[in-house]
Amino acid sequence: MAIRYELIKECKQTGARLGRLHTPHGVIETPIFMPVGTQATVKAMTPEELKEMNAQIILSNTYHLYLRPGHDLVRAAGGLHKFMNWDRPILTDSGGFQVFSLGDLRKITEEGVEFQSHIDGSKHFLTPEKVMEIETALGADIIMAFDECAPFPAEWQYVKDSLERTTRWAVRCKAAHTNTDNQALFGIVQGGMYRDLREQSAKELVALDFPGYSIGGLSVGEPKELMYEVLDYTTPLLPKNKPRYLMGVGSPDALIEGSIRGIDMFDCVLPTRIARNGTAMTSQGKVIIKNAKYTRDFTPLDPECDCYACKHYTRAYIRHLYKADEILSSRLLSTHNLHFLINLMKQVREAIMEDRLGDFRNAFFAKYYGETSKED
Amino acid sequence: MAIRYELIKECKQTGARLGRLHTPHGVIETPIFMPVGTQATVKAMTPEELKEMNAQIILSNTYHLYLRPGHDLVRAAGGLHKFMNWDRPILTDSGGFQVFSLGDLRKITEEGVEFQSHIDGSKHFLTPEKVMEIETALGADIIMAFDECAPFPAEWQYVKDSLERTTRWAVRCKAAHTNTDNQALFGIVQGGMYRDLREQSAKELVALDFPGYSIGGLSVGEPKELMYEVLDYTTPLLPKNKPRYLMGVGSPDALIEGSIRGIDMFDCVLPTRIARNGTAMTSQGKVIIKNAKYTRDFTPLDPECDCYACKHYTRAYIRHLYKADEILSSRLLSTHNLHFLINLMKQVREAIMEDRLGDFRNAFFAKYYGETSKED
Repeated sequence: MAIRYELIKECKQTGARLGRLHTPHGVIETPIFMPVGTQATVKAMTPEELKEMNAQIILSNTYHLYLRPGHDLVRAAGGLHKFMNWDRPILTDSGGFQVFSLGDLRKITEEGVEFQSHIDGSKHFLTPEKVMEIETALGADIIMAFDECAPFPAEWQYVKDSLERTTRWAVRCKAAHTNTDNQALFGIVQGGMYRDLREQSAKELVALDFPGYSIGGLSVGEPKELMYEVLDYTTPLLPKNKPRYLMGVGSPDALIEGSIRGIDMFDCVLPTRIARNGTAMTSQGKVIIKNAKYTRDFTPLDPECDCYACKHYTRAYIRHLYKADEILSSRLLSTHNLHFLINLMKQVREAIMEDRLGDFRNAFFAKYYGETSKED
Repeated sequence: MAIRYELIKECKQTGARLGRLHTPHGVIETPIFMPVGTQATVKAMTPEELKEMNAQIILSNTYHLYLRPGHDLVRAAGGLHKFMNWDRPILTDSGGFQVFSLGDLRKITEEGVEFQSHIDGSKHFLTPEKVMEIETALGADIIMAFDECAPFPAEWQYVKDSLERTTRWAVRCKAAHTNTDNQALFGIVQGGMYRDLREQSAKELVALDFPGYSIGGLSVGEPKELMYEVLDYTTPLLPKNKPRYLMGVGSPDALIEGSIRGIDMFDCVLPTRIARNGTAMTSQGKVIIKNAKYTRDFTPLDPECDCYACKHYTRAYIRHLYKADEILSSRLLSTHNLHFLINLMKQVREAIMEDRLGDFRNAFFAKYYGETSKED
């Protein structure tokens, strides 16, 4: 087995899980936020900077790396770890989400998905077996089965047909995946916003005995309360001795609410994407750095933060960099936002250890969101 | 006096000068290449990274900072050093080059230059006194007098009128500059490609007894041999006990040839600009990273280099980053190119110390340029 999940304790106040995930490239403390390095780089960051902020694992995207530079090249480079100079754990998704997001540019059959590249329009055909070949070449510690992420909203029958195909593809992925000593294959629970379908999907996948389970098809446009409701009835269906990964979720409230509902792993492009667009997540809520009120604000982005950006630079300076379209603006804001989420999860783990995650949530929300509604 | 130049020795083979320049923010070993941080940031880099590669001094642009974020803001931030988190020496130019480059957008009178901002079209009027006010607010260790950089080619009479106005403006700058304990004001020798005019300009400025002298109006489109010829007869006109700065020059051959002709300081956007465009300067010449031949080249940018980029990444990876438009591509190539020029100047200083700069030049050129002609 490539990985082993160790449940340390459950928060008496919330039921959130504190754990350790042992992988070929080291141990991950969970619950954890995973920075996203779509194209074999976490945008604007070096691996050393990610380590400095205690990033324990990163995610990379199979769809993007398959198209560019190609998995053959990454394999020839010695795998993704060596190619990108990252020696800690990596998780790769399956490309399913990206391929299905292409809309008219893709066509689904039982065999797989035919699609056109977003880069050059070239035609490709991904099957569960092909995805396993690609993910094996990339060499991540944790890899995802090829799934369909149904859109929201979607009819019950569509979602049912889709999740059943996802199960059949999971069977094919499991059969095609041979590098089980070095890579752990996760099944992805689908079923949209339908309780009976989530139950069906979870049951079918758990029967296949994967080393871990992802929950897909959430954070696709539905209200957050609905996502939490789906998690409420889905996570209890998953085995306690396996890690649970909620895909594509990274807003501070969802990280906390997901942890409370038994999720161990999260990923999202949010912190780095909004960084490049000039937004910081701080202990007092969001800071939109271009706003005129920061013109002569010589305080750090977040007075409670000890990241590199907050230790050395002012809002006024970062605002100047942002308005002048300087790369250092993206670097500093990405550094801060990733540090913020990684540090948030550290606090979540401490709160679980001390059985006070509910209190922590209430205090954090009051400070971060104030009187406004919770949003990304 | 804000600065003091200490001549250590002259190369017996070439006459190049080895020196030390004492400034309020530390000692600079010369001859030196100064990275350019136009908008209060050396593009894509942090100050710590610049220190790691032993950057001893950086340059920043008065024109850009005056327009954005404004010198009042930088003064309120505690000056440029504090604003941008750089505690080593800084040199600011006068804005003359940028303003005169605006062409139809500027109008020169004896009093100063009226121009329109390249950012928002707003109208501004720069005079020698105003430039001193701005450079004092920015607070660099070394500041430039407001000059006109004549275009190339230009008629003798135009260049003569221009240099004489530059001298009159230098007198006004000197009178307006009061912060002499903390900032050293350099006069800028102009005179185009005319020997008699260079002699006139140098003589007039030396009579004003500046703490250092710049040579402006070169690297403006003329052949390099012509630039070297101008240096051949201009640097001997400058006092031996003052530093000499050749403005806007940064190609490897010009750094060596300039040093041989008695120049102590150089600056250029070249290394960071070509880095963002995907070009590396290496011990074996230029590497255009997008070229197909690097697709599966798993060697470093420069096998003889020990910079961060060369220690950890391959040409294949950096090529992938460049083609994927990732910020890390600009970071790694900027790191390498700046390291390359800073290290080149270290080798130049060692060669001067050992009276073998001529030999070093010949060996370097044979390797860097091979059989091709010298160009940027």
